[in-house]
Amino acid sequence: MTEHFAFHLKTTDGLARLGEITTSRGVIRTPAFMPVGTVATVKALYPDQVRDAGADILLGNTYHLMLRPGAERIARLGGLHKFMRWDGPILTDSGGFQVMSLGKIRKITEEGVAFQSHLDGSRHMLSPERSIEIQCLLGADIQMQFDECIELPAERREVERAMELSLRWAERSKRAFEAQRAAGGAHAGQALFGIVQGGTDAELRHRSAAALVDMDFPGYAVGGLAVGEGHEAMIATLGQTLPALPTDKPRYLMGVGTPLDLIESVRLGVDMFDCVMPTRNGRHGYAFTWNGALNMRNAKFAEDMSPLDELSSCPGARDYSKAYVHHLIKSGEFLGAMILSWVNTVFYQDLMAAMRDAIAHGRFAEWADETKARITKRPAAP
Amino acid sequence: MTEHFAFHLKTTDGLARLGEITTSRGVIRTPAFMPVGTVATVKALYPDQVRDAGADILLGNTYHLMLRPGAERIARLGGLHKFMRWDGPILTDSGGFQVMSLGKIRKITEEGVAFQSHLDGSRHMLSPERSIEIQCLLGADIQMQFDECIELPAERREVERAMELSLRWAERSKRAFEAQRAAGGAHAGQALFGIVQGGTDAELRHRSAAALVDMDFPGYAVGGLAVGEGHEAMIATLGQTLPALPTDKPRYLMGVGTPLDLIESVRLGVDMFDCVMPTRNGRHGYAFTWNGALNMRNAKFAEDMSPLDELSSCPGARDYSKAYVHHLIKSGEFLGAMILSWVNTVFYQDLMAAMRDAIAHGRFAEWADETKARITKRPAAP
Ligand SMILES: [Zn+2]
Ligand SMILES: [Zn+2]
Repeated sequence: MTEHFAFHLKTTDGLARLGEITTSRGVIRTPAFMPVGTVATVKALYPDQVRDAGADILLGNTYHLMLRPGAERIARLGGLHKFMRWDGPILTDSGGFQVMSLGKIRKITEEGVAFQSHLDGSRHMLSPERSIEIQCLLGADIQMQFDECIELPAERREVERAMELSLRWAERSKRAFEAQRAAGGAHAGQALFGIVQGGTDAELRHRSAAALVDMDFPGYAVGGLAVGEGHEAMIATLGQTLPALPTDKPRYLMGVGTPLDLIESVRLGVDMFDCVMPTRNGRHGYAFTWNGALNMRNAKFAEDMSPLDELSSCPGARDYSKAYVHHLIKSGEFLGAMILSWVNTVFYQDLMAAMRDAIAHGRFAEWADETKARITKRPAAP
Repeated sequence: MTEHFAFHLKTTDGLARLGEITTSRGVIRTPAFMPVGTVATVKALYPDQVRDAGADILLGNTYHLMLRPGAERIARLGGLHKFMRWDGPILTDSGGFQVMSLGKIRKITEEGVAFQSHLDGSRHMLSPERSIEIQCLLGADIQMQFDECIELPAERREVERAMELSLRWAERSKRAFEAQRAAGGAHAGQALFGIVQGGTDAELRHRSAAALVDMDFPGYAVGGLAVGEGHEAMIATLGQTLPALPTDKPRYLMGVGTPLDLIESVRLGVDMFDCVMPTRNGRHGYAFTWNGALNMRNAKFAEDMSPLDELSSCPGARDYSKAYVHHLIKSGEFLGAMILSWVNTVFYQDLMAAMRDAIAHGRFAEWADETKARITKRPAAP
């Protein structure tokens, strides 16, 4: 009955790839962008808006959900999908990245990470086994190995240590996931991905990738990028890392990025992305449009009654004027954040759809050049 | 072409009234509840949700809109309806109440009120003439006279002074509105209402009402209630005031109130209401339901997967579980405020529709007793 997890590479255009991931909860068209539903909600959007935007899959955060409302509670309530009214696939991260950026770390050992909650100071432990247990309690269709993600720049010795620890945690994550499957906590429609680490060092990335490929995961993520190294270094690292991964498995670039980041990464062969940028920048007054990113706080929009973005497939982008959204954002009104989060979420999905279409027609490079020229303006950091 | 402003009393049931107000932008079924769109948005709702909730008319706040984005600016942009995408009727208050509760008052004189903005300290003046000018610039279908609204309790002499000043301002508001009509700033489909003042003193209320009726307004508001006098005193004052108003004109009770307040006021013959309670309480985690008001922060909802309100006509009330909304509110997520503001706005419209139906069928008293028993729980103050 349950569909087996599978990846089907439909066609390529240069290094860019068009594919489909099958899960028991539906098909994910790749390249795919996953809106981030941190604490079981894509911020300021109704789930129907996310679905109608064209998103096939959401991301949920293990760290946030384990603290509130709690993984065991979500399991008792029927799982994350039912809890948040999202019946499509969900990918969960392992908690590794966020425990290190948000939690108050008490101790990192071979066993895992002991930390205190940023919410109430309560003490918790995350390990490969506990991370997989949580992801199974949530019912995630795609799960991620537990890893250690360090900030860049860092000394090579430190990057290497974290990469090697992450490989040992990959092994333990895989064993834990297989044990869950054997015990009925996961089924054949769900999958666990490995995460390539190694900073911006090509040799470390290759060793990490090779070791993970030996473990034979059904998908591979590139982690530890977009953590301060800049667009050029990220793209260079990606160009060195992706050839070390098998072509018949999906590749997921974690936590990325700007529209430009996405275009350049798809060009190199990335299949999946997630980022808080569409909603976070929306809350801060930035609109992603087919004429570039707009800072809606700018006074030049105060009497501009033209629609936010006539070219968008988002009704909100066509219905609401720049003047009105400018007013809402300046006034700190919910509706401003709601409209821009919606518009940006649709823009990201429209962008992915356009890339899939360009690959299908064998004109990705041409499309990319045209599109980059149109959307050159990158949003200022909020 | 433009429909003339008109009120048609269709039937009565005891003192309760079923009617219709005609404006050039459509018909308002009374008794009517007007959602409050303070700064050109009903907080945390898309305009489509407000319309679909069954609201025929919105309220906008002159004080807020004159400060941001400014009345002249809204006029240049085509008026408030176009600006905020609401094509139904809009009622604006005069700014009198809010300038006194929010503005930093510099001086109240016979001429008007000099004040500083709560936003940036900039200096402004509101007078009957300027208030009407602003309401015409906004394009409000129903406008309110400029009045002085004082806090209760207050000494009788002070209540009387403010009431008499408000009568003189009523005269000037009416002349200003007629001048606007003559000059094309308002048309026959728009109307100006007078406001009865006088605190909880029956004699002062009668004098105020009689003087306003002499001026022959197309509608009358009861102002200066729900400012700290309590439900019983408010209902008692209303019972003494309404008989002094003509039966063939709409009566609007300003800034009220709880579901119980609305039921008891309709019973006495009120036709129109406005209040921020549905959205403000929603943002603070309170749900109005047909089983009473619920504080969604309460831990008892943490694992309650039943819908917020099965009896609601709001899709959000039927689709989202109490457990999920509890989680969203506890997490301070936008979606919690969005869902509860929506659910509460629909509840208030459903309540008004039920009252109209009960009056039409001559069973208002029976319906009111049944309904009050069901929704006895009043929301705790947020
Ligand atoms: Zn990101
Ligand atoms: Zn109120």
